[in-house]
Amino acid sequence: MAAYREASESQAQLLEALVEAGHLIPSGVPGVYGRGSDYEAVRLAFDAYVTRAALAAGETPEVLRFPPVLPRRQIEDLGYLENFPHLAGSVFAFEGSEGQARAMAEVAGQHGDWSEHQHPSDLCLTPAVCYPVYPAVARRGTLPAGGVTIDPGASYAFRHEPSGDPARLQMFHMRELVRIAEPETVQTWRDSWRDRALALLVDLGLDARFDVANDPFFGRAGRMMAASQRDQALKFEILVDITDPEPTAIASFNYHQDHFSGLYGIETADGGTAHTACLGFGHERIVLALLKTHGLDVAAWPGEVRSLLWDSVG
Amino acid sequence: MAAYREASESQAQLLEALVEAGHLIPSGVPGVYGRGSDYEAVRLAFDAYVTRAALAAGETPEVLRFPPVLPRRQIEDLGYLENFPHLAGSVFAFEGSEGQARAMAEVAGQHGDWSEHQHPSDLCLTPAVCYPVYPAVARRGTLPAGGVTIDPGASYAFRHEPSGDPARLQMFHMRELVRIAEPETVQTWRDSWRDRALALLVDLGLDARFDVANDPFFGRAGRMMAASQRDQALKFEILVDITDPEPTAIASFNYHQDHFSGLYGIETADGGTAHTACLGFGHERIVLALLKTHGLDVAAWPGEVRSLLWDSVG
Repeated sequence: MAAYREASESQAQLLEALVEAGHLIPSGVPGVYGRGSDYEAVRLAFDAYVTRAALAAGETPEVLRFPPVLPRRQIEDLGYLENFPHLAGSVFAFEGSEGQARAMAEVAGQHGDWSEHQHPSDLCLTPAVCYPVYPAVARRGTLPAGGVTIDPGASYAFRHEPSGDPARLQMFHMRELVRIAEPETVQTWRDSWRDRALALLVDLGLDARFDVANDPFFGRAGRMMAASQRDQALKFEILVDITDPEPTAIASFNYHQDHFSGLYGIETADGGTAHTACLGFGHERIVLALLKTHGLDVAAWPGEVRSLLWDSVG
Repeated sequence: MAAYREASESQAQLLEALVEAGHLIPSGVPGVYGRGSDYEAVRLAFDAYVTRAALAAGETPEVLRFPPVLPRRQIEDLGYLENFPHLAGSVFAFEGSEGQARAMAEVAGQHGDWSEHQHPSDLCLTPAVCYPVYPAVARRGTLPAGGVTIDPGASYAFRHEPSGDPARLQMFHMRELVRIAEPETVQTWRDSWRDRALALLVDLGLDARFDVANDPFFGRAGRMMAASQRDQALKFEILVDITDPEPTAIASFNYHQDHFSGLYGIETADGGTAHTACLGFGHERIVLALLKTHGLDVAAWPGEVRSLLWDSVG
């Protein structure tokens, strides 16, 4: 078992209330929940709200979609296991005879350990929604002038961090946008979205603010990576207070410099190495923040919030 | 490596054309693709088309959504490994020290076998979109009179069957509807949806027909299971011809009798054991059938097809 993070008292209370109200449906595994219809309706409405904001800002990102698994080889190429070995999920499967299959099923039927019958497949769970975007763009060759903006949508991301905190899921939707272009273009885009996203979330009544942040790098070497990332202000997060003892990050804005473009060989129209940035809205956390702020009865939310989410379509 | 199914010549040609047109984006692993914007737009339009058909038929299914992972324990309880050991995917993760993490990352960096550093988590990939529905409904206690209809949406399902056939994906969207009620109610519902779904697909210009079918049970014992399922007409599929050498199943209609309701103890209002049925539309396969039938340029599809998918909203 990976280290299970106990819920704080306020986290446990919120989870209980969410289950009671039908917003979350326990699966039996911490951090893995079904979602009720109101929860899902808010989530989809928020997604469309972000899409409208991009259009209003004059952006017409290209829609690409990717499944929640990606090649094991890509996880290896990205060095993901150097930085986040504790969060990765890899997919194992059966390859064997009928006799071995019977042996596996028998152990499984007794809820024993059938892992010896499972072998690594070519797949891992997708840990970040933007990861498949970079090789997909690289396949096309040199970028067009001005680069590209990709909308990989609100796909699933997996992080192996079982927790009793309803805001810390193992499988969740991250709505991303990705910019791949000249370095200055990418930095300006990242900063303008940080400010736009903050306004979008504050408009929905959330007491949100942004701060410099770092990724959850593993171990002692990871602490240095985190400090360097903060020094260079490569990552910002938008924070809200949902439960004690800490604020919850509900969106992040990440400047990768040439980390991905160097690996996949993405060049700008004038032959330079492209830079990349992405932003991610944590869907489930944002719905949680809205439920905590405006109450568990979505129909009784303030008119202006409902109006921004549902009435301003078109 | 699990047995890789080579593409037939027509399958390989279709895959190449789909990639060339930007509809599918290769990941490097067979059966795992990104999707272009037109492909995704058709997929979402088809999903809404099914939702409107349900409403038009007087159904108001309850929306519940589940992630693409479920508890390992549920796979064990369902006996999934007895019937489909070859299709299951289980999630492994790292639990170890900083030294072990470094060793794993080093092997991974050389594209070696780092599986010894991965341990079974509590999760498996969801093999069928309806599986999480049954325990979720069971938690609520006795069914209301008339039972329930659940819409678990077009969630992801995983099947470990790498193939060069673009219609055989490892991770794909299955749009399901689930009926849980008295036996006769459930059977009537299943048959009415089989007929309704066929009409919906024929209206879109597909040369579709239905036939009795069976699940891909494993091994010799599986052949008897399959024969019994066919004898009892528990499963129907809707078939279209996409590529040689076989027709492709694009939808299925499944009567489970008390398989799930017995396991989870779901009772009808009058105290009997409920029966269950589900239907599933294979999203990616249906988009593929439409692209094969009407051409790879979605903008040039027949007006009546585009109109059914996009203009009949509301």
